[in-house]
Amino acid sequence: MTLEDYTARMSRAARTAADAGLAGLVVTPGPDMVHLCGYRPPAETERLTALMLVPGQTPRLLVPLLERPDALAATGVGATEVTGWTDGGDPYRTAADMLPPRGRYGISDETWAVHLLGLQRLLPDTSYSAIGEALPMLRAVKDTHEVQRLASAGAAADAAYEEIVQVRFAGRRERDIAADLRALLLRYGHSQVDFTVVGSGPNGANPHHEAGERVIEEGDMVVLDFGGLKDGYGSDTTRTVHVGEPTKEERKVHDIVREAQQAAFEAVRPGAACQDIDRVARQVITEAGYGEYFIHRTGHGIGVTTHEPPYMAEGEQLPLVPGMCFSIEPGIYLPGRFGVRIEDIVTCTETGGRRLNNTARELRVVA
Amino acid sequence: MTLEDYTARMSRAARTAADAGLAGLVVTPGPDMVHLCGYRPPAETERLTALMLVPGQTPRLLVPLLERPDALAATGVGATEVTGWTDGGDPYRTAADMLPPRGRYGISDETWAVHLLGLQRLLPDTSYSAIGEALPMLRAVKDTHEVQRLASAGAAADAAYEEIVQVRFAGRRERDIAADLRALLLRYGHSQVDFTVVGSGPNGANPHHEAGERVIEEGDMVVLDFGGLKDGYGSDTTRTVHVGEPTKEERKVHDIVREAQQAAFEAVRPGAACQDIDRVARQVITEAGYGEYFIHRTGHGIGVTTHEPPYMAEGEQLPLVPGMCFSIEPGIYLPGRFGVRIEDIVTCTETGGRRLNNTARELRVVA
Repeated sequence: MTLEDYTARMSRAARTAADAGLAGLVVTPGPDMVHLCGYRPPAETERLTALMLVPGQTPRLLVPLLERPDALAATGVGATEVTGWTDGGDPYRTAADMLPPRGRYGISDETWAVHLLGLQRLLPDTSYSAIGEALPMLRAVKDTHEVQRLASAGAAADAAYEEIVQVRFAGRRERDIAADLRALLLRYGHSQVDFTVVGSGPNGANPHHEAGERVIEEGDMVVLDFGGLKDGYGSDTTRTVHVGEPTKEERKVHDIVREAQQAAFEAVRPGAACQDIDRVARQVITEAGYGEYFIHRTGHGIGVTTHEPPYMAEGEQLPLVPGMCFSIEPGIYLPGRFGVRIEDIVTCTETGGRRLNNTARELRVVA
Repeated sequence: MTLEDYTARMSRAARTAADAGLAGLVVTPGPDMVHLCGYRPPAETERLTALMLVPGQTPRLLVPLLERPDALAATGVGATEVTGWTDGGDPYRTAADMLPPRGRYGISDETWAVHLLGLQRLLPDTSYSAIGEALPMLRAVKDTHEVQRLASAGAAADAAYEEIVQVRFAGRRERDIAADLRALLLRYGHSQVDFTVVGSGPNGANPHHEAGERVIEEGDMVVLDFGGLKDGYGSDTTRTVHVGEPTKEERKVHDIVREAQQAAFEAVRPGAACQDIDRVARQVITEAGYGEYFIHRTGHGIGVTTHEPPYMAEGEQLPLVPGMCFSIEPGIYLPGRFGVRIEDIVTCTETGGRRLNNTARELRVVA
């Protein structure tokens, strides 16, 4: 990404905001900021950092004075006017002086309440909408370069999976397998690992179980869901494996999830609504009699973060557009017993979906 | 921490909120939630998780259905009424139905804007204040048990420092020293490392420089600032070391910072304002002629997170109270040349300050 790329992104974002009737955008640290100017401060903190985009004006970046050197090192920041504020000063006053005092602004979904309230206090005639809702397309459509990065992150996650199924599961703790997975993701080029879910036996029935002290046993289903960032773009894939020979019921449940995932994948095409992808997967599972055990949406967008709009969920009517990248990850969770989830990152192309994860989706037996 | 401890904390918080004229508290994942009910979801996400405390009512916890098992496993959650919401539903509607529709609420500083805006939309007759501003004392005063945890985290960080000064600095990259520091913190019982700043030579003049590719050389000043969580409580300490013999000027600058840190420490006593601690440190540095190079506040609170109110900064008039724990970390940053910072965690006692970091503050020569 060059300075020109970021300049174009920021000016396109300001134009899109104006078209949507917004007075401007207030962007704080997180994926919007990375996308728009390439600046990724160590963390979002109580010290206000804000990129302000107002149509027709040079982008302005307000940063704590002590982080100014970090900000100046980011490629896209060259296209902004940088102002440092000092501890003890009032950054909201400074920000308010840079923004037209009336109108509706888009603000990053992740902006801290203390920052939003600070702006609302000093700009009583402004109102705010979350960027994810007001401009859901801002980061949703990836260019070729970005899809390549996501594909490369997906391939690295796939490589990690192909190795993890070779290790011994029975007799080891979930957290040991998770540590192996983490090391593999780093070895295959990830700079950051965001999650390594290892849900064995009954733990697999909790979709957000991470990895714990449970010792994996012969006969366990094990949900493996892992991802992170490689070259600034996310990976996120899930496969469910079985330690030793599965029972007939386990095979059946796995087959249903696989069929649901395949049907949702085949429903991907430009113009389909996000909620259609969810409905297609849900219908397969519901018709098989397991609808009440599929307790989450079917997917989420992915890009410079591993979880972002658009969401493949009931109520999300946004149409798919070529370049959108998102997960398809139906699951069935049988409380106290086991869970199954299968997840690929998929990108929408002119002609349909293209998977960015390509390991076998059949139930894999591990040792 | 027992269920009774959390129950008492939540009911005290609701009472304090009522005394401050608030209709209640809306608490999202982060330090407030950990403090009040012991629940630490893997991350704050776009899915709303909220603990709602309304005076006179049972605390209510709203969680995404798929994270319900995680929530139920947290000790303090036993004292709340847990409601799960399902993807595709409207969690803001559910939350709004649980809150009296009028009045001013305190909301966690870190709550995402998308969540605050969701509540503001459905509860148009409510207003919001950040808890850090409305109830700055909510987590600021630590009980004996908490001070012990912070002291133990501080001792672990000190042990890591005593080992790191034994390693070779000259000829190694900053990031190698940072990796050593990380490993030492984990070895000494930290569950999580939040930062390992290694700012050598000119990099030390950027207070928030992390650690990079620069190879440390003979003659470098090196700022080492590191910390994380041990048993759920934070550590954060800084020492500046020198590779080989320092120059007269380097010694002088280090002496000024050490004197400023000592003076601020000696100013700690119940009733002193937070800003007084900042002023005392700043005065020493200003009188020595380096005032313009001390470009940040003197300190921040610490507890279940490594950065929290109260802030030792100009404008913060909150008086110190026994049990408050915070950093004292003045510094001098000479652009393009070097930086010096010295930081201890200090707790306010009835009779004055007590340091929770106790390694030598004299300029240490390393190899």
